[in-house]
Amino acid sequence: MQSFDYQTPTRLIFGKGVIEKLPKVMSAFGKKILLTYGGGSIKKVPALSDNPSAGSLYDYVHALLKDFEIVELSGIQPNPKYNPSVLDGVRLCKEHKVDVILSVGGGSVLDCSKAIAAGACYDGDPWDLISYKTKANAALPIVDIITLAATGSEYDSGGVISRTETNDKIGYMDRLLYPAVSFLDPTYTFSVSKKQTAAGIADAMNHTIEQYFAEDTTLLNDGFCESMLRSLMENGRKCLANPNDYQARAEMMLCCTYGCNGILSLGNSESGWPCHGIEHALSAYYDITHGEGLAIITPRWMKHILNEHTLPRFVKYGINVFGIGQELSEWDIAFKAIEKTYCFFESIGIPMHLREVGIDESRLDEMAHHIAVNEGLDQAYSPLTQQDIKDILVDSL
Amino acid sequence: MQSFDYQTPTRLIFGKGVIEKLPKVMSAFGKKILLTYGGGSIKKVPALSDNPSAGSLYDYVHALLKDFEIVELSGIQPNPKYNPSVLDGVRLCKEHKVDVILSVGGGSVLDCSKAIAAGACYDGDPWDLISYKTKANAALPIVDIITLAATGSEYDSGGVISRTETNDKIGYMDRLLYPAVSFLDPTYTFSVSKKQTAAGIADAMNHTIEQYFAEDTTLLNDGFCESMLRSLMENGRKCLANPNDYQARAEMMLCCTYGCNGILSLGNSESGWPCHGIEHALSAYYDITHGEGLAIITPRWMKHILNEHTLPRFVKYGINVFGIGQELSEWDIAFKAIEKTYCFFESIGIPMHLREVGIDESRLDEMAHHIAVNEGLDQAYSPLTQQDIKDILVDSL
Repeated sequence: MQSFDYQTPTRLIFGKGVIEKLPKVMSAFGKKILLTYGGGSIKKVPALSDNPSAGSLYDYVHALLKDFEIVELSGIQPNPKYNPSVLDGVRLCKEHKVDVILSVGGGSVLDCSKAIAAGACYDGDPWDLISYKTKANAALPIVDIITLAATGSEYDSGGVISRTETNDKIGYMDRLLYPAVSFLDPTYTFSVSKKQTAAGIADAMNHTIEQYFAEDTTLLNDGFCESMLRSLMENGRKCLANPNDYQARAEMMLCCTYGCNGILSLGNSESGWPCHGIEHALSAYYDITHGEGLAIITPRWMKHILNEHTLPRFVKYGINVFGIGQELSEWDIAFKAIEKTYCFFESIGIPMHLREVGIDESRLDEMAHHIAVNEGLDQAYSPLTQQDIKDILVDSL
Repeated sequence: MQSFDYQTPTRLIFGKGVIEKLPKVMSAFGKKILLTYGGGSIKKVPALSDNPSAGSLYDYVHALLKDFEIVELSGIQPNPKYNPSVLDGVRLCKEHKVDVILSVGGGSVLDCSKAIAAGACYDGDPWDLISYKTKANAALPIVDIITLAATGSEYDSGGVISRTETNDKIGYMDRLLYPAVSFLDPTYTFSVSKKQTAAGIADAMNHTIEQYFAEDTTLLNDGFCESMLRSLMENGRKCLANPNDYQARAEMMLCCTYGCNGILSLGNSESGWPCHGIEHALSAYYDITHGEGLAIITPRWMKHILNEHTLPRFVKYGINVFGIGQELSEWDIAFKAIEKTYCFFESIGIPMHLREVGIDESRLDEMAHHIAVNEGLDQAYSPLTQQDIKDILVDSL
């Protein structure tokens, strides 16, 4: 078992109607708020599912925070952009001497808010921090209200920021960036589209798979991960069948929350998160939906790394996650487990070929090179060369 | 799914030799330390398993903290006592204007240190806080070094304090009482006796069972709990067979850490922790080892509450924790699961009858009455009357 140094200080306030606690929570951090959001779901989602007169989340947040000064940054996109979103947010924080950021949306808005929180307390170019050229000394506190179950950004210290001109998509982590408080009301995810719900399921499943497939793991963590995967599949299917199923939306939301803060793999060896390494290039070059990219890559990556050495892990995965019968041979269990992974993603409506999301063979070499140079996958669980990465991409077409 | 408001801010520093970080960690909290410990294991455990010249944990802590002022409170007993331990600790903190408490030992030392931390910042009788007569406004920060894997006090906000003259044993919780930092070096548990190792396994297993048997649970939490139980049994057996098995001691230590901070049951309905309610009286009246008391009570409690309504839960428990074949009838699976629970505790050397730990029938009525009045078990999962409690106690003789 590996040594570790672990802390997740975020407070989770979870359940229907918890937004009522917002004013009290915010008042601990100051009076000047940067309110960050994306394409407008904040203006459509009902703030209180049992009380339509409260209006949209946007309206109700303003009503609840009428005694605060609010500056807004809107239009934060999926795969959030350094320019303009991070830069604009940092500028607003500095100009208005903001005390605290309130992020309302999914993981993209929150990831962007984290980069802003660090940049606002830094005199130089915020890219210095994101690219690890220098380390932040401080960051503004962040409170978030989650409207999409997927990334787990609400319970981790990381964010992923894209810089279009260089095709960079960087996962940026710093202990300073744990949200102080995350509000999780499952009813806010009732209106999430089937496409985004499925992408969220795939995202959280891949977060778990990236930690499960590691050289050294524990019986404890293996069981945690297997439970995550079973729950995400069962509750994910229910969310798609009945978008207003509170119990299913709630459990999916809780599952997603555990995806990236390390609790699923404390003491495991590092896996290198290879599917993320590959997918980051896909969305940096083509701006595809992250969860869809992960779903496409995952079974191809599995097929590619299956060998004598990794076989026992696939066998365990097949038996405990998919209930594949132990009467089959180990290889048959492994093949079947990979097939079931693919079929599950396909069954929830994810386009399972790169061509379906607008990616053809033209830039595969360039992306494989970019990934090999930047993502350190030669150190991953089952190390990947540039040729390996290219093969996985070709197989994903 | 139930709503919840959850936060575990404690930093876990886990692994062999992590104590080297102690001076840096302590310096964040001040210069004056109250060092709390128990019967002297601190003076026997080697501080660095690879470097005997570092001496005992006691010696090395003093060497590492030579630039700090240290006041000591020793002799804290299992089932830690309000009088003298808590009262002495509070007095020392006030007299010496202590900045931070350093607890070295198992859950009893840490539980006592938590009560001291709150009492040190309160003008009245500390029992007011422990008995919930009033709520603490502040508490001293706590750092701990764990030498016994069992209670999970290192990652929760609670403590259990006994007051001998009234036979009270109260579980006291307050968000202020999460340790700031917990040092977990599995080598410190190598010298834990077979008796205490087994009691620790039973303690952590019962913490999990208390959360697993609840009215509303999630597929996710069920899987987390089942994984805990499987890991505790497998690694517990290994620890007993080979006390210096680092991997097994480490995984057992990690499992125990999750026992009581709620992470295993976020969103579940309250179970009321009935076995703890009963066991607290046993150790308050007879000062028995907590984990042994829990092991004795658990299977009798299970047998008592098994009925048509609780049957599905026992079936799930039997199949997923013990691998009992699904070809059996539901009732047979449940009976077998309870039998296997009993047999596991017995197999690790726990005395499985109250008489074996010095408890006869003479005070069962008095204890059943005390439990019924004080523990609220009429609200527990499968509610218990005073007669139910008495029956469970009689069955445990």
